[in-house]
Amino acid sequence: MRNFKMLLAYDGTRYRGWQRLGNSPDTIQGKLEQTLSRILEQPIAIHGSGRTDAGAHAAGQVASFHADTTRSCRELTALLRQYLPEDIGVLEITEVPLRFHARLTATGKTYVYRVWNSRVPNVFERRYLYQLGEPLDVEAMKRAAADFLGTHDFIAFCSNKHFKKSSVRTIMALTIETLGPEVRFTVTGDGFLYNMVRIMVGTLLEIGLHRRPADDIPAILASRSREQAGETAPARGLCLKEVYYP
Amino acid sequence: MRNFKMLLAYDGTRYRGWQRLGNSPDTIQGKLEQTLSRILEQPIAIHGSGRTDAGAHAAGQVASFHADTTRSCRELTALLRQYLPEDIGVLEITEVPLRFHARLTATGKTYVYRVWNSRVPNVFERRYLYQLGEPLDVEAMKRAAADFLGTHDFIAFCSNKHFKKSSVRTIMALTIETLGPEVRFTVTGDGFLYNMVRIMVGTLLEIGLHRRPADDIPAILASRSREQAGETAPARGLCLKEVYYP
Repeated sequence: MRNFKMLLAYDGTRYRGWQRLGNSPDTIQGKLEQTLSRILEQPIAIHGSGRTDAGAHAAGQVASFHADTTRSCRELTALLRQYLPEDIGVLEITEVPLRFHARLTATGKTYVYRVWNSRVPNVFERRYLYQLGEPLDVEAMKRAAADFLGTHDFIAFCSNKHFKKSSVRTIMALTIETLGPEVRFTVTGDGFLYNMVRIMVGTLLEIGLHRRPADDIPAILASRSREQAGETAPARGLCLKEVYYP
Repeated sequence: MRNFKMLLAYDGTRYRGWQRLGNSPDTIQGKLEQTLSRILEQPIAIHGSGRTDAGAHAAGQVASFHADTTRSCRELTALLRQYLPEDIGVLEITEVPLRFHARLTATGKTYVYRVWNSRVPNVFERRYLYQLGEPLDVEAMKRAAADFLGTHDFIAFCSNKHFKKSSVRTIMALTIETLGPEVRFTVTGDGFLYNMVRIMVGTLLEIGLHRRPADDIPAILASRSREQAGETAPARGLCLKEVYYP
């Protein structure tokens, strides 16, 4: 038995998210498992670094799987590229120690959220942008973003009402850049709760639209109440950029 | 009666090209005419600067139309943005003199053709790239490209066998850039025959793959024979970037 690590990019537009749903091939995990199982002629279960939402994307998702095969990483890569649809791309496959597990071994992740802040539509990148015509106060959002840094209980920024494990997470960085009409949020943390990045961005956007004050974040965190935070920003703007390992 | 000039961007992937086909809305022109006619409650005929092929794109297509309306350009823009699908974008509408005609007044055009020259797939821009894994000799293509410059009879680079008008065109610039794994062709001319850019690029790619010599272009032009030129490169890599007016 050998263990393989895959680096993946995908356009999540037409998928129901990362996580397998029965035998349906309309999830990223389902499509990858189906394709790998056919290529290797054995049932393959893959472990992603984490789930991505329906409609969200990845430029650097990591997944691992065990397989009994003599095929090289290069052969596996070529075969997967041949049989996968063009919205799922294998960037690299490497062999890793048997104990490596894409989720359990991960120490952190970086997500990017892209907002197109213009009334002039962006046709070519529309699948990867949340297009918002009303002008954003980027400086107010930057001031508010600083309050997310560090270690907090993020349960107010979690869509799962029955989350039972610890909801304490550490945010190492949250930057907001303007690139022409684009406002790009980049957030790095040791882990993220369900919908956490999208609710953080949704709340920051309400601050950027002056619908809530820029100093609102500490009170929302302290409330531990989902109702106090902003709306969940649309999935299409979200992309898992990188997963970190020791 | 007033005359309007529209600047348009579109992702041509799911359309049968620019040109209207009966009353079908699966062409860019058909979709625009249908939408404008409904908004303005009168039949509107629009004139594009030229046709784009099925599956090809535009970042700066220009179209003009006459209409009997009191609506401002700003109102027309907002209404079109509201009703057009998200793969057709109105960048700008301006009012122009009645004699302006998007095709007849045009003095030149720039097209971009994008090749992704890597075996590592590009998932996010796949609709706008021709992905070609075999390595290209870019220097050989650059030497060959110089032979297209100037005024020539381009009938060998035209898919229409029954073309009756003059097939003499002037190419003002043809640059080939490498941007990471991307090889980008940018060509400016006073006009282009049917499939001309795609056949020019297809021929240059055969030179880049060492399937024909780099000094082949003058003989192909002189032959005036479509059979002597290379294959027509796929439409998905082609984008009409800009149309010039006096």
